[in-house]
Amino acid sequence: MVLGGSLKSELGGTLIANVGKSRVPRHVGIIPDGNRRWAQARGLGKEKGYAFGIAPGLALIEACRALGIEEVSVYGFTKDNVKRPSAQKLSFQAACVEIAREMAAQGVALLAVGDDQSDQFPHALRRFLTRCGDGIKVNLLVNYDWEWDINGLRHGALMSREVTRLDLIVRWGGGRRLSGFLPVQSVYADFYVVNDYWPNFRPEHFAEAIDWYGKQDQTLGG
Amino acid sequence: MVLGGSLKSELGGTLIANVGKSRVPRHVGIIPDGNRRWAQARGLGKEKGYAFGIAPGLALIEACRALGIEEVSVYGFTKDNVKRPSAQKLSFQAACVEIAREMAAQGVALLAVGDDQSDQFPHALRRFLTRCGDGIKVNLLVNYDWEWDINGLRHGALMSREVTRLDLIVRWGGGRRLSGFLPVQSVYADFYVVNDYWPNFRPEHFAEAIDWYGKQDQTLGG
Repeated sequence: MVLGGSLKSELGGTLIANVGKSRVPRHVGIIPDGNRRWAQARGLGKEKGYAFGIAPGLALIEACRALGIEEVSVYGFTKDNVKRPSAQKLSFQAACVEIAREMAAQGVALLAVGDDQSDQFPHALRRFLTRCGDGIKVNLLVNYDWEWDINGLRHGALMSREVTRLDLIVRWGGGRRLSGFLPVQSVYADFYVVNDYWPNFRPEHFAEAIDWYGKQDQTLGG
Repeated sequence: MVLGGSLKSELGGTLIANVGKSRVPRHVGIIPDGNRRWAQARGLGKEKGYAFGIAPGLALIEACRALGIEEVSVYGFTKDNVKRPSAQKLSFQAACVEIAREMAAQGVALLAVGDDQSDQFPHALRRFLTRCGDGIKVNLLVNYDWEWDINGLRHGALMSREVTRLDLIVRWGGGRRLSGFLPVQSVYADFYVVNDYWPNFRPEHFAEAIDWYGKQDQTLGG
């Protein structure tokens, strides 16, 4: 899958025009929710939605790179998610493998974060358990679980220890909750919700989130 | 300070009328932000706002009790907050002591959660380090810190181990972030933001939050 050049240009142009001089987050979290509801609304099986989330993901990473964002964490799937029907599970696992390959091909410094001691961790992603490359940092959460993550503290450190603190989290699909997304890195993150489903991603969603973020007060409790 | 009977009745009546048969959360988190901005907007010193947050807090707890909510966690102050100017620190510490005394007098099963090994933990709250009473459970976070909390895992369990998972978090003052509020208990909580400052609390704010919560999908990742 290759992202069309025109979408890339559109994104970069829209964002740079809209965001202007506002403060840009260093690290953005992405919760790409609503794939199943998107598919159902089109009369497709729920499992068909995930494949339509790949191009938006690549477009978003490209937009982050254009804005100078240093790090992006993307909620792929969780250990709870794999309890869903097999057709769904295979679809979101395949989508994660495909977007990872594309990102790596584009020079992203990719890190897969999740329980790799389980069969549910896709074999094709094992090579991303160590970050390499010097492009924009992308952390892809695959077979992730918040409890697995923080239980690392019992043995010295978070399992997600390589993931830095988040400045902004953007969730598509209307849900106003973190759903277990990186609880420790999220403690001071501003939370922006897009009501549209993730496969309906439009550049303006992200531009509006970045613009909104630039207007938030940052006190960190001081 | 005693909550006026008329406000109590107004609250109960409004809530019960508005909420109707919707699903009620078991455990609600409260982030009562905006006290300083409220004071400044009235030409008062920033530290003057906290005292005006006590009556709203008591009113809210009464509303929770009327709705059958079992547990409420209230963000009092953090270890970061105590780095603020002394006048502010003394004011919010005094407000926490006063609301705790009032709640205890009203039969609330109160638990103070925070770093009590520090001088910043108010002495008058030490008696609430063990929960007693059989009324509605209220967890008051005083000299709390998310890192202090999760570092408990290094020694066996969260420091906030007695606080259960949150269903709904309501934040006043417009901020769309958790600001370190109980990160582990917040992983699946729905997050509702009221733009008004906390001392401007009105029963409708909470009724709308409860009503909104009742319409949210609860999947817990499944």
